[in-house]
Amino acid sequence: MRTTQAAMNPSSPLPDLSRLCIHTITTKPWAIETAAAEFAAAGVKGITVWRDTLAGRDIAQTGRMLRDQGLSIVSLCRGGFFPAATAAGRTKALEDNRLAIFEAQLLGAPLIVLVCGAVPGQPLSESRKQIVDGIAALLPECQAAGVKLAIEPLHPMYADSRSAVNTLAQANDMVEQLKSPWVGVAADVYHLWWDPALEQEIARCGRLKALFAYHVCDWRTPTTDLLLDRGLMGEGCIPLRQIRAWVEAAGFNGFNEVEVFSTRLWATDQNEFLKKIVQAYKDHV
Amino acid sequence: MRTTQAAMNPSSPLPDLSRLCIHTITTKPWAIETAAAEFAAAGVKGITVWRDTLAGRDIAQTGRMLRDQGLSIVSLCRGGFFPAATAAGRTKALEDNRLAIFEAQLLGAPLIVLVCGAVPGQPLSESRKQIVDGIAALLPECQAAGVKLAIEPLHPMYADSRSAVNTLAQANDMVEQLKSPWVGVAADVYHLWWDPALEQEIARCGRLKALFAYHVCDWRTPTTDLLLDRGLMGEGCIPLRQIRAWVEAAGFNGFNEVEVFSTRLWATDQNEFLKKIVQAYKDHV
Repeated sequence: MRTTQAAMNPSSPLPDLSRLCIHTITTKPWAIETAAAEFAAAGVKGITVWRDTLAGRDIAQTGRMLRDQGLSIVSLCRGGFFPAATAAGRTKALEDNRLAIFEAQLLGAPLIVLVCGAVPGQPLSESRKQIVDGIAALLPECQAAGVKLAIEPLHPMYADSRSAVNTLAQANDMVEQLKSPWVGVAADVYHLWWDPALEQEIARCGRLKALFAYHVCDWRTPTTDLLLDRGLMGEGCIPLRQIRAWVEAAGFNGFNEVEVFSTRLWATDQNEFLKKIVQAYKDHV
Repeated sequence: MRTTQAAMNPSSPLPDLSRLCIHTITTKPWAIETAAAEFAAAGVKGITVWRDTLAGRDIAQTGRMLRDQGLSIVSLCRGGFFPAATAAGRTKALEDNRLAIFEAQLLGAPLIVLVCGAVPGQPLSESRKQIVDGIAALLPECQAAGVKLAIEPLHPMYADSRSAVNTLAQANDMVEQLKSPWVGVAADVYHLWWDPALEQEIARCGRLKALFAYHVCDWRTPTTDLLLDRGLMGEGCIPLRQIRAWVEAAGFNGFNEVEVFSTRLWATDQNEFLKKIVQAYKDHV
């Protein structure tokens, strides 16, 4: 590993909550109206909206409600899942992504996070090609709607069925290939922390002007479920201060987004949990 | 991904069982004596011995028993776990590895597989340094005993506590750094299948004369446990024929070792399971 200035100097604690964003999935038991009111009351400044929370709602009105609470709408989660075994399946995936772009425009979200997809048994190289083709097909709609897309590299343990993009290097490669100001990367510590090339690829992402989003949580030991056992920051082994130093050295000054999926934490009192999130943000991010 | 000759031509089915090895952990319910007799009767030619199966036994006598059954002893599993928070912990780890080398010599195993270790919360770069230092310290004993060591890169989902070596590139880097004929790599498809650099790193490992072992199983969708839900070959999405083609193009002609940890499969009749292993070897490896 290179020993740069950033590597030697982990970042300092954040001075306030002005860059704290929480994903609605983090407090999944709450309806979006409850989440918005509680987040705002706790001093949280940003919200990333998961599409399931919009079901049955007027999306434009929901966007106004969030802004009225003083919240910045950071992104919409999520689009993607481009690969499919058949052309019809890939067309259907594109239609869902076009719907997501429309929803983001209505909501007033400037960015959609992409979980890019994979088909078990289909060669990863083929899925990667289908992902690039799918994103390329959406670029006219992105430009028309003013909505960017962020490729989120997912942990290699999701390569079978959730994403064939498993390192930041691969996401950066795709950004270079697509050459569009509408396509960048969402860097999530849960997926990337183990990668020996992380520092250099974060720097490269910065040089590409492609670091669109930064997600935080923690990796627990032991982890008891592949999907729903993420830790709150401080509960695990991810060097959060170190990674934030690298991200900031790469020019990122956007929101630090708390994205935790945890059946354990969802089962707790969500008001108490929100207090813990804010404290963990101060202590560990 | 490069499109080489090997990439275009997955390997053919194996002509016979002459390169089939099974790890004792794969049929964990069996004592080593039962495993040896049943493997031999099924036409299996190699066995990799997990150290737990040697508890309470005369190790040299057990080695003779295995050879008397016509089995090649492929390797001893496992050494490693070099990193520790304290110098005393690292010394203790070295002592256990020296014991493993002595056991391998008694058993007549030419190779020890290393699960290299990690300490939750200790920087991965520090754990990697401790791993290299630990292996370097063992080289005199390896040479004296005639026992080689194989660094096994583990899937990134084990980076917290089981291994800070998570890609074949990292293992190859360590081999280059250690520059010893006693140190190479064990390549396991479960850990490596997702890696976009896999083909090129297998070729590099071959050029380094460091591809000491090849392990097979499969990745199930969904995977329900991070450790004990491996699939039998054919039950998952790993392109086994493709990876074997790469391994053989790199010059490997050793055993294909079946290493499956599965509470699901351990709960089945082990004689029926052994028949399925042999069939899966013919159909999918």
